[in-house]
Amino acid sequence: MGLTDEQITKLKDADLGFLVDEIAQTQADSDAMWLIVASVLVFFMQTGFAMLCAGLVRAKNTKNILLKNVLDACAGALGFWSIGYALAYGEADGGNPFIGNTHFFMTNWSGQSYQGWLFQFAFAATAATIVSGAVAERTKMAAYLGYSFVLTAFVYPVVVHWVWATAGWLSAFNAAPLLGTGMIDFAGCGVVHMTGGISALLGAYVVGPRIGRYDADGRLVEIPGHSSTLQALGTFILWVGWYGFNPGSTLAITGLGDVAGRAAVTTTLSAAGGAVSCLAIYKASSHAFDLGQTLNGALAGLVSITAGCSVVEPYAAVIIGLIGALVYTGWSEFVKRKLKIDDVVDASAVHFACGAWGLLAAALFATKENYASAYGIDEPEFYGAFYAPTGKGHQMFVNAIIGIVVITAWVTALMLPFFYAMNMAGLLRSPPEEEEAGMDVSKHGGSAYPDYVVSVNPAAK
Amino acid sequence: MGLTDEQITKLKDADLGFLVDEIAQTQADSDAMWLIVASVLVFFMQTGFAMLCAGLVRAKNTKNILLKNVLDACAGALGFWSIGYALAYGEADGGNPFIGNTHFFMTNWSGQSYQGWLFQFAFAATAATIVSGAVAERTKMAAYLGYSFVLTAFVYPVVVHWVWATAGWLSAFNAAPLLGTGMIDFAGCGVVHMTGGISALLGAYVVGPRIGRYDADGRLVEIPGHSSTLQALGTFILWVGWYGFNPGSTLAITGLGDVAGRAAVTTTLSAAGGAVSCLAIYKASSHAFDLGQTLNGALAGLVSITAGCSVVEPYAAVIIGLIGALVYTGWSEFVKRKLKIDDVVDASAVHFACGAWGLLAAALFATKENYASAYGIDEPEFYGAFYAPTGKGHQMFVNAIIGIVVITAWVTALMLPFFYAMNMAGLLRSPPEEEEAGMDVSKHGGSAYPDYVVSVNPAAK
Amino acid sequence: MGLTDEQITKLKDADLGFLVDEIAQTQADSDAMWLIVASVLVFFMQTGFAMLCAGLVRAKNTKNILLKNVLDACAGALGFWSIGYALAYGEADGGNPFIGNTHFFMTNWSGQSYQGWLFQFAFAATAATIVSGAVAERTKMAAYLGYSFVLTAFVYPVVVHWVWATAGWLSAFNAAPLLGTGMIDFAGCGVVHMTGGISALLGAYVVGPRIGRYDADGRLVEIPGHSSTLQALGTFILWVGWYGFNPGSTLAITGLGDVAGRAAVTTTLSAAGGAVSCLAIYKASSHAFDLGQTLNGALAGLVSITAGCSVVEPYAAVIIGLIGALVYTGWSEFVKRKLKIDDVVDASAVHFACGAWGLLAAALFATKENYASAYGIDEPEFYGAFYAPTGKGHQMFVNAIIGIVVITAWVTALMLPFFYAMNMAGLLRSPPEEEEAGMDVSKHGGSAYPDYVVSVNPAAK
Repeated sequence: MGLTDEQITKLKDADLGFLVDEIAQTQADSDAMWLIVASVLVFFMQTGFAMLCAGLVRAKNTKNILLKNVLDACAGALGFWSIGYALAYGEADGGNPFIGNTHFFMTNWSGQSYQGWLFQFAFAATAATIVSGAVAERTKMAAYLGYSFVLTAFVYPVVVHWVWATAGWLSAFNAAPLLGTGMIDFAGCGVVHMTGGISALLGAYVVGPRIGRYDADGRLVEIPGHSSTLQALGTFILWVGWYGFNPGSTLAITGLGDVAGRAAVTTTLSAAGGAVSCLAIYKASSHAFDLGQTLNGALAGLVSITAGCSVVEPYAAVIIGLIGALVYTGWSEFVKRKLKIDDVVDASAVHFACGAWGLLAAALFATKENYASAYGIDEPEFYGAFYAPTGKGHQMFVNAIIGIVVITAWVTALMLPFFYAMNMAGLLRSPPEEEEAGMDVSKHGGSAYPDYVVSVNPAAK
Repeated sequence: MGLTDEQITKLKDADLGFLVDEIAQTQADSDAMWLIVASVLVFFMQTGFAMLCAGLVRAKNTKNILLKNVLDACAGALGFWSIGYALAYGEADGGNPFIGNTHFFMTNWSGQSYQGWLFQFAFAATAATIVSGAVAERTKMAAYLGYSFVLTAFVYPVVVHWVWATAGWLSAFNAAPLLGTGMIDFAGCGVVHMTGGISALLGAYVVGPRIGRYDADGRLVEIPGHSSTLQALGTFILWVGWYGFNPGSTLAITGLGDVAGRAAVTTTLSAAGGAVSCLAIYKASSHAFDLGQTLNGALAGLVSITAGCSVVEPYAAVIIGLIGALVYTGWSEFVKRKLKIDDVVDASAVHFACGAWGLLAAALFATKENYASAYGIDEPEFYGAFYAPTGKGHQMFVNAIIGIVVITAWVTALMLPFFYAMNMAGLLRSPPEEEEAGMDVSKHGGSAYPDYVVSVNPAAK
Repeated sequence: MGLTDEQITKLKDADLGFLVDEIAQTQADSDAMWLIVASVLVFFMQTGFAMLCAGLVRAKNTKNILLKNVLDACAGALGFWSIGYALAYGEADGGNPFIGNTHFFMTNWSGQSYQGWLFQFAFAATAATIVSGAVAERTKMAAYLGYSFVLTAFVYPVVVHWVWATAGWLSAFNAAPLLGTGMIDFAGCGVVHMTGGISALLGAYVVGPRIGRYDADGRLVEIPGHSSTLQALGTFILWVGWYGFNPGSTLAITGLGDVAGRAAVTTTLSAAGGAVSCLAIYKASSHAFDLGQTLNGALAGLVSITAGCSVVEPYAAVIIGLIGALVYTGWSEFVKRKLKIDDVVDASAVHFACGAWGLLAAALFATKENYASAYGIDEPEFYGAFYAPTGKGHQMFVNAIIGIVVITAWVTALMLPFFYAMNMAGLLRSPPEEEEAGMDVSKHGGSAYPDYVVSVNPAAK
């Protein structure tokens, strides 16, 4: 799409050169509309995360988690405005493969796209918000604010630059990336979900488990959240928002309408596969139809398809979702039972583990035709290992593994010291008496639900 | 809209043939965007149904109804992917009037539209989810899953084929339908709402009323739901989603922007009319300003305008909504007091009765000009009975009646035996002790709200 | 954008005149899509207001406030259909500067835009719904219905006409407005938020404070709402909806994609600035991280940027939001502590005070280039006082002040007598015993949450 030089010459020869601009502007306006609408859907995911996290904490910590969710959106906006965008997409003089460096505070904004910033901000805020639930119910406010800003302003944008900027060393949009081809991460399994998910895991590890999460013998004690309804509401909203996240990652609609449509279809099927798979897994193991796990299964499916949404076939999306649920449940059980890390909302299982699986899945299932249309490459050399000739498919898969390792290493190298430093400075963990009383009474002026009698449920105390 | 052959020739003669593709692709991309956005709105209705149904059940059955709502979206996706779409729209060799037969599992997908599938899936999931509330609080999970799959994969797609496929015998898109003209059902009063609504009624009938719904003398006992807020949230979200359901049913925006706009306006006015009408009806009869009935009145208005949204005038939309509320209240009272069927969320009154009224209303109020623009017919012969010459208008009205009868008969013929068979096999109704204890404790691992004290409200026990 | 006469001639000369229509229609359809999507987002704000208001009242008044929120949407639709649109935009024979007068009941609808009506209706409903929270927990239903209709059908449309209609005396779209230039109110700081906000203040003043809001010595008693979660949900949804409200106020996407993008960016940054600012203000004064105030800070930022969203730079948006939070807190404290007016949801602080600040801010920060692109003026003479030559910038600022005064005066002149008359007729204030028992039990058939035990929290009693 878009007129070629030859076509433009023909129009000018016919004294109709003005049509070039007219058509280009019409298409640019459609692209702007698409990106704004998609951004709104992605931003709506903030609502989803807020409701989901609120549902999964006890009533006594509701205001605390809601405030964190509001603030990471705000810190994300200010962080991405001031520094983040510049590090991610500031590509003066062709840019460099490792970090961007122009347009701090959205200055020298000409030729840049406002709607492009909006979409990228919404993604950054998503990465930040993933952490909030993992460290819920015992983390200090200041630590959380500091974390949100560092992640959206620095840690995350660098990953964006590597994988999505034209100059990024691992970018599928780079004409000559370091490893022969880039990594397929269409909507951010690695960039967004792994970055957020590994931070969540590290945060939950350093801050330590909630009081009562493990009994004297180290056995896991379930601490149910205070509202399954909020969890369901949040998950539904996230699913809705994902239709901005995945299809919107085309960044334009011109020439990409069908690619966006395919991304929406695969997103749907993977979510469905994940939910049904989780329902079956937990029915088999616990004999209950587990709402919470089924909802997380849908999220597992959604994360798992995020890298490959535009390049895999519908049947593959179903498989990716089904396996995603296994990855989720395996990681979740491992983290809480073996590592004894208390990740309140299973953020690392949903976002980190399924994010990694999603990168691998995209590198396996990407068809040549779909990869060509999604990435605008006429005749791609590299594509999914299940379809490509040996060397080319292997390289894609190897790049996904490299991406997983490097992203994990980068985020860990920055966030682990950050959380440790906060902890040693006494800024991370709330005092036990505040935790027992609940954050809302201790720090936020009172209960979120002052009209209700809170139960004698021991875990809620 | 779209270039004619003559226009294309002119462009080629001027050596500007490339403009044909450029313009067509630009329009196709806009159409794709429109359909994706509309699909997202329709899918958002799943959130609305989930919240609405949750609000209308007792706290002890919250997780149960939420899980059913999640799963019918998932079963809908997998059912429509594997079989449903093929039966609805698979039209090899021109298709046949009664059932489609290609593209199972989305195979041989070339020239088909991903976003078209997405939109149709969202509709199928809507049809399925309508039932969940009707049979709430006493139906087994397995029965529900089976039902969802059967409906979205088989029963519903066949109705779609009849009314919306190019080859369908009752389709307004069929150049030569069986009855001279098709049935006006622009966004699915018959296809979606009647299909879902009659299934809901049959399910509620076969499964029987909840324990305590009728006292020893057979008198109705009100069993209020546990959260009016959730009911309101759900209804608001449904109203929002309806702007995808009705205007989105243009299936494209190119040449249809004003038709979509008209559909959005009539949708708004009918919802408002329905709500105000219900408020007045219940104020007059009960002397209370009844929130729940007002919300259902809005839904009644929304369903009632669904068939005719694109073809009636704004004034007619107000009337259709006002009458829709009467149809709703009349049917609701009849079903619960005379038939003694316990339809927890009044699904059959909202969806079946108002769906039927909507078909009749469209056949009465469709203006020639609106019908022409909405259906792309230059000079329609048939249109609304209030405007058309006698024979032509009568035929439209007769066709609506035929459609109502045939859809009711088809769905009944399949679903009634299905529900009976499930019931006889002991798979439909939960045991009384589970029902009394509540589904959440019995089957879903515990309360949806473990931190709260549930009241001594006898009906909640 | 759009073809010039000269360009059209060239196309006709090349025997390609049909391209004129083809291009125009393609653009018109995109514009229709944009306006419908934006309208849906604005309408979604009704859901947000409903949840926000519900969260801020006590459990015993939940159904009451929800019903009011549903009904102002409905009354808004019927009021704007019958009279409102005609008064706002009915411009027969060029119109007059003070009031419109055609298209009552959407008659003679040819050349008018359905989607234009839809967008304007959604704005009218927003203006109406602003009041509901301010007078919550003690106002009669009938008064509320009367108020909603009067506001959306008459008071508000006249303001719309002045500021937004082509013929309006204060309209920036008027080629020769009364004061040399119009007032910059791109998305309705004055038109919507001040109109709603001042009505809210007047209503809350006339109806008087809730029982128990001030103690025997006249000191303020906090009456916390029953659900912080609902407040957060509502605020998040409002933020999402604002992306329709502000960017959608371009009314078209053709040639305005980047303007819409800029509006979305400034909206985001101002909201973030407002939230962070409020968090800091209340942390400093109360030593608590106040969720409720942070949420209101976001809303303050959103309202503050509404007038200038398309014409200010991103840095200015941050400043506007930061100051907006100060304006909000100052006004809120003044109203409740000095004026002793009980505005339950701080509607007048958020909407009236920040609305006024937003008008001033737009008149200060509008850059020439942005004003030119947002309003389609090639070489604007007047623009923001911080950028314009002295006389021209001053005029903009003076016009903003005139607008603030005139809108306040107009709404007060109509609504104050209205509320007084209702009050004297005994139609405004609920009897004390109903207020103490709660509206839901008194007037709406029972509690919104019949399954729960309501606490001994004295304020909730």
